[in-house]
Amino acid sequence: MALLRTSDGTQIYYEVHGDQSNPPVVILNGIMMSVPSWAGFVPHFSRHFRLILMDFRDQGRSERKDSQYHISIHVDDLTDLIDALEISSANVVGLSYGGQVAEMLAIKRPERVNSLVLANTPARISPYLAELGEAWKEAAELKDGERFFKLAIPFIYSDFFYNRNLQWLKERQKMFKSTLNGEWFEGFIRLISSNPDFNVLEELDKIQCPTLLLGADRDIITPIEEMKAIHERVRNSEFLVIKDAGHGAFLEKPGEFMTAIIGFVLKNC
Amino acid sequence: MALLRTSDGTQIYYEVHGDQSNPPVVILNGIMMSVPSWAGFVPHFSRHFRLILMDFRDQGRSERKDSQYHISIHVDDLTDLIDALEISSANVVGLSYGGQVAEMLAIKRPERVNSLVLANTPARISPYLAELGEAWKEAAELKDGERFFKLAIPFIYSDFFYNRNLQWLKERQKMFKSTLNGEWFEGFIRLISSNPDFNVLEELDKIQCPTLLLGADRDIITPIEEMKAIHERVRNSEFLVIKDAGHGAFLEKPGEFMTAIIGFVLKNC
Amino acid sequence: MALLRTSDGTQIYYEVHGDQSNPPVVILNGIMMSVPSWAGFVPHFSRHFRLILMDFRDQGRSERKDSQYHISIHVDDLTDLIDALEISSANVVGLSYGGQVAEMLAIKRPERVNSLVLANTPARISPYLAELGEAWKEAAELKDGERFFKLAIPFIYSDFFYNRNLQWLKERQKMFKSTLNGEWFEGFIRLISSNPDFNVLEELDKIQCPTLLLGADRDIITPIEEMKAIHERVRNSEFLVIKDAGHGAFLEKPGEFMTAIIGFVLKNC
Amino acid sequence: MALLRTSDGTQIYYEVHGDQSNPPVVILNGIMMSVPSWAGFVPHFSRHFRLILMDFRDQGRSERKDSQYHISIHVDDLTDLIDALEISSANVVGLSYGGQVAEMLAIKRPERVNSLVLANTPARISPYLAELGEAWKEAAELKDGERFFKLAIPFIYSDFFYNRNLQWLKERQKMFKSTLNGEWFEGFIRLISSNPDFNVLEELDKIQCPTLLLGADRDIITPIEEMKAIHERVRNSEFLVIKDAGHGAFLEKPGEFMTAIIGFVLKNC
Repeated sequence: MALLRTSDGTQIYYEVHGDQSNPPVVILNGIMMSVPSWAGFVPHFSRHFRLILMDFRDQGRSERKDSQYHISIHVDDLTDLIDALEISSANVVGLSYGGQVAEMLAIKRPERVNSLVLANTPARISPYLAELGEAWKEAAELKDGERFFKLAIPFIYSDFFYNRNLQWLKERQKMFKSTLNGEWFEGFIRLISSNPDFNVLEELDKIQCPTLLLGADRDIITPIEEMKAIHERVRNSEFLVIKDAGHGAFLEKPGEFMTAIIGFVLKNC
Repeated sequence: MALLRTSDGTQIYYEVHGDQSNPPVVILNGIMMSVPSWAGFVPHFSRHFRLILMDFRDQGRSERKDSQYHISIHVDDLTDLIDALEISSANVVGLSYGGQVAEMLAIKRPERVNSLVLANTPARISPYLAELGEAWKEAAELKDGERFFKLAIPFIYSDFFYNRNLQWLKERQKMFKSTLNGEWFEGFIRLISSNPDFNVLEELDKIQCPTLLLGADRDIITPIEEMKAIHERVRNSEFLVIKDAGHGAFLEKPGEFMTAIIGFVLKNC
Repeated sequence: MALLRTSDGTQIYYEVHGDQSNPPVVILNGIMMSVPSWAGFVPHFSRHFRLILMDFRDQGRSERKDSQYHISIHVDDLTDLIDALEISSANVVGLSYGGQVAEMLAIKRPERVNSLVLANTPARISPYLAELGEAWKEAAELKDGERFFKLAIPFIYSDFFYNRNLQWLKERQKMFKSTLNGEWFEGFIRLISSNPDFNVLEELDKIQCPTLLLGADRDIITPIEEMKAIHERVRNSEFLVIKDAGHGAFLEKPGEFMTAIIGFVLKNC
Repeated sequence: MALLRTSDGTQIYYEVHGDQSNPPVVILNGIMMSVPSWAGFVPHFSRHFRLILMDFRDQGRSERKDSQYHISIHVDDLTDLIDALEISSANVVGLSYGGQVAEMLAIKRPERVNSLVLANTPARISPYLAELGEAWKEAAELKDGERFFKLAIPFIYSDFFYNRNLQWLKERQKMFKSTLNGEWFEGFIRLISSNPDFNVLEELDKIQCPTLLLGADRDIITPIEEMKAIHERVRNSEFLVIKDAGHGAFLEKPGEFMTAIIGFVLKNC
């Protein structure tokens, strides 16, 4: 639990868990997440990893900014963080938006990435994803956690998960209601506005490190076909699919999610 | 283009196309649709069918009601219509919400259904579908066609369709903006509120007529698995799947949609 | 039930069913089939079509040849047949090997094809298909219908079909045992040897007529992905998928098979 | 590299790799495999595991028996082996036939299994699998490695793998030709004859240890649907799917295979 002041003076919140001698693993959040989203994973991951969690600017306990930025700014923040932690080469796990940041890091700073896991991650903002972004912005403008949950979350979790975990989802809806405030929504809108032009498809061949694609068969945000396009362009990448899960696979099927990540990182360390 | 006054005095709009000697086919709209949604299909269907299109109460040019009703009320309206048209036994094609009405008719009045096509149709409102209904109600409460389009439509058409037809979708968004008014939204909310308890799974074995399930592989509203549950319960039913299409398959892939319906109805007449 | 003598003097067996005024539909057999394989379909198809069935040379009651030929020879035989029947432009339905012949006809003689249905059909003999051909030749060399059935048929019907129709399959195995003789196996080997170099992928853009791809989700001989490659190259083609069926979909799911073909042909006549 | 004499006096070949202090992992072969099939995996697995490989009786360097046995006999052999190695509770990874043995061990001797990985494994011999067994017996009776390869192997590897690795497969075919002898085929026939009545579906709820199902989306021998039936019956089991691979996924996609196994075992140790 610490704060880093980045080169441009922004405060970034991060946590480090696990033994210093374990392989360093940085996990990058999806757009609606923050460090506490990983609470259930910390005990497992920290047994095997030196686990580094961080909030992007405009997420969680990191600083909120008034002005718009491009998603690539997080690559600089992340580089500052791994510099500060004296990690020469990290194992980077990115989820969705965090996966986009991970892709950019692996392309621009290949020497800093030992291995890469892209979970439910796109290589481009397709027209569909851009429209989904518009829908989410529209929902965020209401600045009401409950209505935001109702409007945005059915895109994220699969019907399969809704049909089996309705009570949990209702609890979560209440939590959104009580915790998401105006600041949160403004940060969220900046985050979502940071990447409409994101497209690294043609640069993926620069990724040389061992790479795992981790998809989910009911994910409509980053569907299997989009992830397969990454798999075909990243040399020797692996591709595992979690069954009966949506874009929120890490929460819908945490066991499978951890199995794949622990196995892939340890195999490559 | 005519109006029927039903037994309970409600005005129902309907159209009849094609030769009187052709087999009678009634098409039942999805929840956001109305008779003009079928404009592109009329020339094709009316070559083979005596085609009957209708708006449910609270849709299109049918009467709007002040008070809430149950989805089963449409079964009575529909029966009144086929009585008035002196059709002893119709071929009924239902799409989504219209498919639910078609299921109820085939269960309650089997003698009036010669064959049945259930396109992108559920047999129950699953918890996921109920939450989607809540999302759509929330979006409708904004009473703004453009925002409604942005929030609700990405559930309906597949990413595949968005990625190839963005311009058409943007035109449509404008049309929603200019045509959906307060009355429309109120009707829509009543329609969506008419079926949270809908579940005919255990009555499907009463359907004896030839039945075609027509699904789409990227439909997240009535996914293949839910339609397979219908297929397994309706004796000798057929099941065809449209590739690379979502819940709006009839519009995403009109060719496949017509092929399946024309073939199935003519085979069974 | 008639014999045609083709331009090169080969006797081709064919049958014509249904009213002369119906649209002409020619159905082309898969490699192990012959005219009687369609017996169950004739009553249905002949209500709507002027149905023409034929055996390729080396199939059924057509002449068996001593020497090897190329698959394209069937295009000439087929052209002779539709000439003799004075059909200026036919609706052509090809199944697997028959679909390959149909593709070649539509490419070389587009004016003779009004519409095209390619059921479980490849556009090329992939390395996998070539090896499967080798396996089948190996099995045919045993010249024993029962052993041939055991070795070759599990590639054709899906596990789904085996698990529900074992008794029927066992009966069929007996039929293979009693009816497949040395001549049959020699003809089969020539048929399978006629197309190792078959590849029309780059010519598919010449197909201009309405085209339906009809696939099956458990078909390992002509899997969905291979048929999708055809779909993407044939302008405005339609693609329907039969659920829970293998390469033998026409027999596993005859209802769906007929629905798609009747609908597609009648829509385009 | 050692031999164990089991309670009934049969010689079982096994190997132990990796540090004694690592978690013990026993890998059980598929029916056509033997210890050397894992050669490429030993360096990776032995970094993390105390890796135990073994040949079932009638496989590789284990003793060949004249008389028929039931598949359950391997459970006794395996128990003898883990007793001899003084492993109180092993992590057991079974592939296909080996997975069936692993299931039986976990059901009968739950105290001896710490965690379980079932890769491309059935819970019952379906009618389809039984017929496939008949096909393979038929192919084995020819006692010719090359013809056996041609007839049996296209069921195992996916079309995807054939289309990209034909040369490797041709080399392998030669290897089959030169190494499979009469003894091998007799052993293989006994192995395949040992399990036509295998069905543990109704006993799967006895499996209490952490369990990973590892399937492949083009596997026609143990298709995803059959493995899903296991997933639904084994409490809290995980299910990961390897994309674009067949029943031979361990060889088609060794990276994904190792990632899943290393991650799952280490997470549960």
